[in-house]
Amino acid sequence: MIIVMSIGATEQETANVRDQLRQYNLTPHDNYGTQRVVIAVLGDVAPVRDLLVSKLSIMPGVESVTPITRPYKLTSRESHPEDTVIELLGTKVGNGNLTIMAGPCSIEGREMMLETARAVAKAGATILRGGAFKPRTSPYAFQGLGIEGLLLLAEASKETGLPTITEVMEPSQVEVVAKHSDILQVGTRNMQNYSLLTAVGKAGKPVMLKRGYGATIEEWLMAAEYIVSSGNPHVILCERGIRTFETYTRNTLDLTAVPLLHHLTHLPVVVDPSHATGKRWLVKPMALAAVAAGADGIMVEVHPNPDQARSDGEQSLTFDQFADMTSALVQIHEMVRTLNKDPFAMTGPIKAGSAKH
Amino acid sequence: MIIVMSIGATEQETANVRDQLRQYNLTPHDNYGTQRVVIAVLGDVAPVRDLLVSKLSIMPGVESVTPITRPYKLTSRESHPEDTVIELLGTKVGNGNLTIMAGPCSIEGREMMLETARAVAKAGATILRGGAFKPRTSPYAFQGLGIEGLLLLAEASKETGLPTITEVMEPSQVEVVAKHSDILQVGTRNMQNYSLLTAVGKAGKPVMLKRGYGATIEEWLMAAEYIVSSGNPHVILCERGIRTFETYTRNTLDLTAVPLLHHLTHLPVVVDPSHATGKRWLVKPMALAAVAAGADGIMVEVHPNPDQARSDGEQSLTFDQFADMTSALVQIHEMVRTLNKDPFAMTGPIKAGSAKH
Amino acid sequence: MIIVMSIGATEQETANVRDQLRQYNLTPHDNYGTQRVVIAVLGDVAPVRDLLVSKLSIMPGVESVTPITRPYKLTSRESHPEDTVIELLGTKVGNGNLTIMAGPCSIEGREMMLETARAVAKAGATILRGGAFKPRTSPYAFQGLGIEGLLLLAEASKETGLPTITEVMEPSQVEVVAKHSDILQVGTRNMQNYSLLTAVGKAGKPVMLKRGYGATIEEWLMAAEYIVSSGNPHVILCERGIRTFETYTRNTLDLTAVPLLHHLTHLPVVVDPSHATGKRWLVKPMALAAVAAGADGIMVEVHPNPDQARSDGEQSLTFDQFADMTSALVQIHEMVRTLNKDPFAMTGPIKAGSAKH
Amino acid sequence: MIIVMSIGATEQETANVRDQLRQYNLTPHDNYGTQRVVIAVLGDVAPVRDLLVSKLSIMPGVESVTPITRPYKLTSRESHPEDTVIELLGTKVGNGNLTIMAGPCSIEGREMMLETARAVAKAGATILRGGAFKPRTSPYAFQGLGIEGLLLLAEASKETGLPTITEVMEPSQVEVVAKHSDILQVGTRNMQNYSLLTAVGKAGKPVMLKRGYGATIEEWLMAAEYIVSSGNPHVILCERGIRTFETYTRNTLDLTAVPLLHHLTHLPVVVDPSHATGKRWLVKPMALAAVAAGADGIMVEVHPNPDQARSDGEQSLTFDQFADMTSALVQIHEMVRTLNKDPFAMTGPIKAGSAKH
Repeated sequence: MIIVMSIGATEQETANVRDQLRQYNLTPHDNYGTQRVVIAVLGDVAPVRDLLVSKLSIMPGVESVTPITRPYKLTSRESHPEDTVIELLGTKVGNGNLTIMAGPCSIEGREMMLETARAVAKAGATILRGGAFKPRTSPYAFQGLGIEGLLLLAEASKETGLPTITEVMEPSQVEVVAKHSDILQVGTRNMQNYSLLTAVGKAGKPVMLKRGYGATIEEWLMAAEYIVSSGNPHVILCERGIRTFETYTRNTLDLTAVPLLHHLTHLPVVVDPSHATGKRWLVKPMALAAVAAGADGIMVEVHPNPDQARSDGEQSLTFDQFADMTSALVQIHEMVRTLNKDPFAMTGPIKAGSAKH
Repeated sequence: MIIVMSIGATEQETANVRDQLRQYNLTPHDNYGTQRVVIAVLGDVAPVRDLLVSKLSIMPGVESVTPITRPYKLTSRESHPEDTVIELLGTKVGNGNLTIMAGPCSIEGREMMLETARAVAKAGATILRGGAFKPRTSPYAFQGLGIEGLLLLAEASKETGLPTITEVMEPSQVEVVAKHSDILQVGTRNMQNYSLLTAVGKAGKPVMLKRGYGATIEEWLMAAEYIVSSGNPHVILCERGIRTFETYTRNTLDLTAVPLLHHLTHLPVVVDPSHATGKRWLVKPMALAAVAAGADGIMVEVHPNPDQARSDGEQSLTFDQFADMTSALVQIHEMVRTLNKDPFAMTGPIKAGSAKH
Repeated sequence: MIIVMSIGATEQETANVRDQLRQYNLTPHDNYGTQRVVIAVLGDVAPVRDLLVSKLSIMPGVESVTPITRPYKLTSRESHPEDTVIELLGTKVGNGNLTIMAGPCSIEGREMMLETARAVAKAGATILRGGAFKPRTSPYAFQGLGIEGLLLLAEASKETGLPTITEVMEPSQVEVVAKHSDILQVGTRNMQNYSLLTAVGKAGKPVMLKRGYGATIEEWLMAAEYIVSSGNPHVILCERGIRTFETYTRNTLDLTAVPLLHHLTHLPVVVDPSHATGKRWLVKPMALAAVAAGADGIMVEVHPNPDQARSDGEQSLTFDQFADMTSALVQIHEMVRTLNKDPFAMTGPIKAGSAKH
Repeated sequence: MIIVMSIGATEQETANVRDQLRQYNLTPHDNYGTQRVVIAVLGDVAPVRDLLVSKLSIMPGVESVTPITRPYKLTSRESHPEDTVIELLGTKVGNGNLTIMAGPCSIEGREMMLETARAVAKAGATILRGGAFKPRTSPYAFQGLGIEGLLLLAEASKETGLPTITEVMEPSQVEVVAKHSDILQVGTRNMQNYSLLTAVGKAGKPVMLKRGYGATIEEWLMAAEYIVSSGNPHVILCERGIRTFETYTRNTLDLTAVPLLHHLTHLPVVVDPSHATGKRWLVKPMALAAVAAGADGIMVEVHPNPDQARSDGEQSLTFDQFADMTSALVQIHEMVRTLNKDPFAMTGPIKAGSAKH
C-alpha cells in the first residue's frame, strides 16, 4: 500500500499516518520527494486492506491511498500457477480443452429438451445446458418449469451421457439443483448476490459464474473468491457482455477479458456470445473470435424451432447452425493451440512456470 | 408494437408476420411507404410483449420490432397518476415531504448506534438507517453484526421514535428483518435478485429499492414492478450512482433520474450521495443538488468517529457535518417547493391532473 | 511515481529499473516488502511522466507503474489556489458570481436573434449565446449561417450590452470568430482537437471548453492545459453530460463534476442542462441542481418558438420558461452562497487559503 | 417515422401533428389502438429526419417519435450491396483480402523508420504506418516530427514498395499529408471533427476513419457519411476500442462491431488491437480474434526497440513478435474464409445478392 501525502501536509499529519499503520502491525517506510512525502507500507496488508484504505484516505494531509496487492487471493494465478481443470463425466474444462455448452434457453417440455439434447450431443457439444429457474426482467414473463425442468434435464443427461449445467437463483434452491445437475450456474444479475455465492460454495458441485453486466474484472474475481473461499475450488468464469453506451447489440462482448483472465487467474474462462449479442447471426463470428482469443469454451442457446421459443428465440441457433458453428470452432481451436506453441508467442509478465500463454 | 419490414421483403414474408400476430389475437395494420411496409399492431400486446419481440425479430423479412407500450404497469404514472405517499410512525415519504435517512453504514455496537441515533434525530433526520447484514465486495471484510445489529437498531428506534431502515440480502432473512425494522432495503447488487424482490413484495413492510449500478431506469422500474405485483405498493426508489468510465468518483450520480422518475412513476424518489461519490466532502453539495432537482429525500451515512468506522468511513459524515447539511437541505427544500408552484414551471408531457411537477 | 516489481522479479531486473530512472536524473528509492520490492521515484518526474510510464511498464519484472503527480499543472488548484475570475463588459465569471448564458442553438435570422437577445437580457441573462458554425452529426443537416450569423450575434450584443459566446470549429475560423465574439466556445466533439485548442490558446479571448461526452475529468483538464499553456489563462469549463448506458436521456449529466472541479482546478465551471438532457422539461430542475451543487453558472438554449427551431427545438426554452427558470436560479444561488459560508461546510483536502468551498 | 401519441391526447393534438407532417409533403397514416393513436409517416422523410424528430417530439400530445430509416445513406449496404474494395499499389483492402498495417507509433528518425519498414515488409505487412503529426493528451509530450516525418515515411515506402498511412490532424495539413502518403488517417479524437472530415473527403486519397472512443456505431457511420458525401468513396473503418467502466485495459475492444458493420455497410473494417488494449502481450490474441470475427485486417504498432520508443512503447511489438503474429493471422484468415463458405453460415437479414457473409 502506498500513501501519498499532500503538498503541504504537516509533519504531525504524517506522523499520525505512521501511527495508524503501526496499530495494525504494519511498518511505514517514508520516501521524501521534492514536494511531498510518500509512505510505503510494509507487512501483511491483505487482511485489513479495505478498512485501511477507508481510514487512511480521510486522514488530514493524505492525498491518496493506493493498494498494491490485488484483493483476490485464492483465485489469483500468483497463488496457484497451474490452470484449474474440472472433470465431469469424462469431460475436462480448462487447460486447453475445448468446452461447448449448448441447449435451450428455457426447458419448455420433455420432447424439445430430449430432441435438443440429442442434436447438440451429436454435433459435438460437451455439456448440456437448459434453464429450469429463469430470471426474467419482467414479472409477467415465463419463469421456467422449475423442478420439473430439472428432472427433464437430468433425463436428457442420462440419455446422451453429457454432464449438465443449469441456473440457480437463490440459496434455498441450491440443494435441489445440485442434486439434479452437474454444474451450478450463477447468472449475471446474481454475480454479487453474496448469500448465493456462499451457498454454491458449499454445494460440492462445480459452479459457473457469469460476469455481472456492470461488473469489473476485479469485482468478478472477488465474487469467485467468495465461492472458492467457501470451500469450492471448481469455478468456471463466463464472459457474457458488459453494458456500454453502444445500443446496436444488447451488450458489448469484452473478449479482451479472455487473455486478461488467463493472466490474472487459473480458472477456466468460457464465453457466451448468445446473450452478449442478442442476435442469432452474430453468434458464430463471435464464438470463433472467442476461441481465437484463447477461450476455454463457449456457451450457446440452441432450440429445435427458435421462432417458437418461449424465451430468447432471437439469439438461439437451429440444430444445423449449431452443427456448422461447432465444426468451425473445433478447427479454429486446434489451429490456435498449435499457433500458440510458437516460441515467440507473446505473454504477460508472468514468470515462466506459471502460465500456458 | 411496430414492425418494420426490410426493403425487399416479399409479400409472403409480410403475410407470415400478419399470421403470427393473428395467432395472439392481435390485429396487424399495414402502412405502405415508398420503400417498405411498416406493420402497426393493434390489440392488447402487453401480456405477450417480450415473447413477440423475440419471435418476430427473427422472422425473414423483418428489419426491426419496436414495442410502444412501456413494460411496467403498476409502477407507471399512467396507471396511477397521484404520488404514492408512505406513512411510518407519523413520518410521510413522498409527495413533497422531505425525508432524511441517516445513520451508520454498519452497526458496530450498542453505544455507537444509540449515540448516532440521538445525534441524527436531534439534527432533523426523519428515518434511522443502520446496516446489520452487509454485502461486501470481499469475503474477508466485516459482514455486519446480523440479528444482534437488528436488535440494536430497534432499540435506537424505540428511544428516538424514528422509524428504521436496514438492508435484507436474501429471502430467508426477510421475516426477521421485517420483524425488527420499518423499511426493508434492497441493495444495488440485489436489484435484479428476483427471488428477493418477490419475498420483500410479500413482507408487509415498505421497501426501498436501490438502483443497480449498471441498471437502466426501465430495468429499475421493472424490478419495482416485481415488488408491487407481489402485493406491496409501498416502494421507495433510491438513486445511488451508476457505473461509467469516469473514475474520480466511485460512481456517477444520475440526478436527472429524479425529475425523470417523477414523470414516469408515482413512487417516491430519494438520493444517496454517500455511495455515489464515495467522498465525504462531496456529500453536502450533491445532497443539496438532489433536493434542488426535486428529490423526495436523501440517505446518508453518519458516524460518531468516521476515522474509526469499520466500513465506509471515507464517505461518512460527522455529527456536526450532518447537522450543517440537514439545516441547509431544509432551507433549499422549502425554497424549491415554493419555486415549483410557479405557473410557468416546466413539466413533461403528463396530463394536468396527474403529477405535482 | 511508484514502481511495483513482480513477486519473483530478479535482483538484475530491479537493478535495470533503477538504471533506467537514473538516466533521467531521477533517484530510485527501494521499499522492501515481505513479497516484493516497491521503488519510489524521487526527483522531477513531470516532464517525462508519460514516457517513463510507457518504458518502465514493459520492463521485465515490473508489475505496475503508478504516477503520483497529476499531469496538469497550470490548470491545477495546487499551482494557483485562488479562483480564476474572467471579466467581460462588466460581467464576471467565476468566484461566486452567477453566470447565465442563453440564446438560440442556431442563429436562424436577424429578427429571431434580436428578439431572443432582448428577451434573455431582460430576464437576467449575463452572456448571449448563438450558434453560427454548427457541428452536426449529419452532413445533411443545417450547418449554421456562418459569418452572417457572427455579424447578427455582434449586432445583438451591441443592442443589449451583453457579451457573447459562439462556437469555433477549426483553427482557420479562430480569427474571424475572435473578432466578432467575446468568448470562443470549443464543443464537446472537439475537446481533444489539439490543433484547435492551440489556436484558441493564442486568440486573446476567453474560451469555454465543453467536456467531451466520452472524456474523463483528467482528460478535460489536460485539454484545458493545452489552451492555458498556449498563453490563454481565461478558460471556462462546461459540463454537458457524458455518455453512459442509460438511454432515457441523451447523456448523463455529471453534476458531481462541479464540486470535484472546484477542488482540482481554479477555473470557473458552468453546466449545460439543455444538451445533457435533450428535453425541455428537464432543463429547469437540472439547472437548479447545478447551482445547488456550486456551479458558477449555466448555459441554456432559448428560442422565440421552439416548435419551429431549425435545431434542438426539443430542448429549447420559451421566453417565459427562461424567465421563470432564471428567477428561480437567482434565488437558489443566493441561498447556496449563504449556506456555504457556514463554518461546518465540508471541503476537500485543500489547504485553508486556497479555495472558496 | 412513427409517432406515438399519448394516452389521452386530444383529437386536435393529433390533427396538429398531421398538419405538421403535411407541411413537409409527408403523408400521415393513422393506426388506432385500444388506448392511443400511432401515426406512421409515409413519404421521403430522410432530408428532414432530424428536424422532424426535434419538432414533433415537443408537440403537445406526442409521447415519442421513432425514425425508421437509418440516417446514413451512401455508406449503407442497402444503398451499395457490394463490398467496397480499395486498391493501392497493387494491394487490395476489403472483400476478403487480409490487410496488415504496421509500423512505428511515432516516426522518431530515419534509421528506425527504414529498419522497421524493412522488417514489417519482410514479415508480411501490406501497408506501412508511421506517425508524423501526433495527437497527444498532454501538451508537454512529444508531438511528432511533422513534415520531416512524412518525408521519411515516403522514403520507406519507396524502398519497400508498401503503400503508407499516416494521421492528419487539421484541415490545413490535408494537402501536404495527401502529397506524401497513400492513406489519410483520421484519429479517434477527431472522428467528429467535421471540418477535417470534409477536408479529407476532398483530398483524393483513401481515408481510414478510426472510431471515436465514445462514439456509437451509428455516429461512426455518419462521420463516414461526411467523407463519402464530400466526394470520397474510399473509406476504411477502424475499430480501436470504446470507453467503458472496465479499467484493466485502456479501452474495451468492441469486436462485435466487425460482423455488425459488415451487415450495415459496404466499407472495409480493420481492427487496431494495440490502442484498445494498451498492452503488448494482448495484441496477438486480440488480432487473431479480430480476424476470426471477420475483420478485413488489422493495424498494429511495431518498433525496433519498444523499451526505447518515444510513445506507446508498452503496446508496440518487436520485429519477432510481429512476424510470429502475422504468420498466425494469415493461417487463421485462410481458415475463416474457408469456414464461412459453408452453406449453413449464419447471416444477418440482408438479401442474397448483397453481402459476402
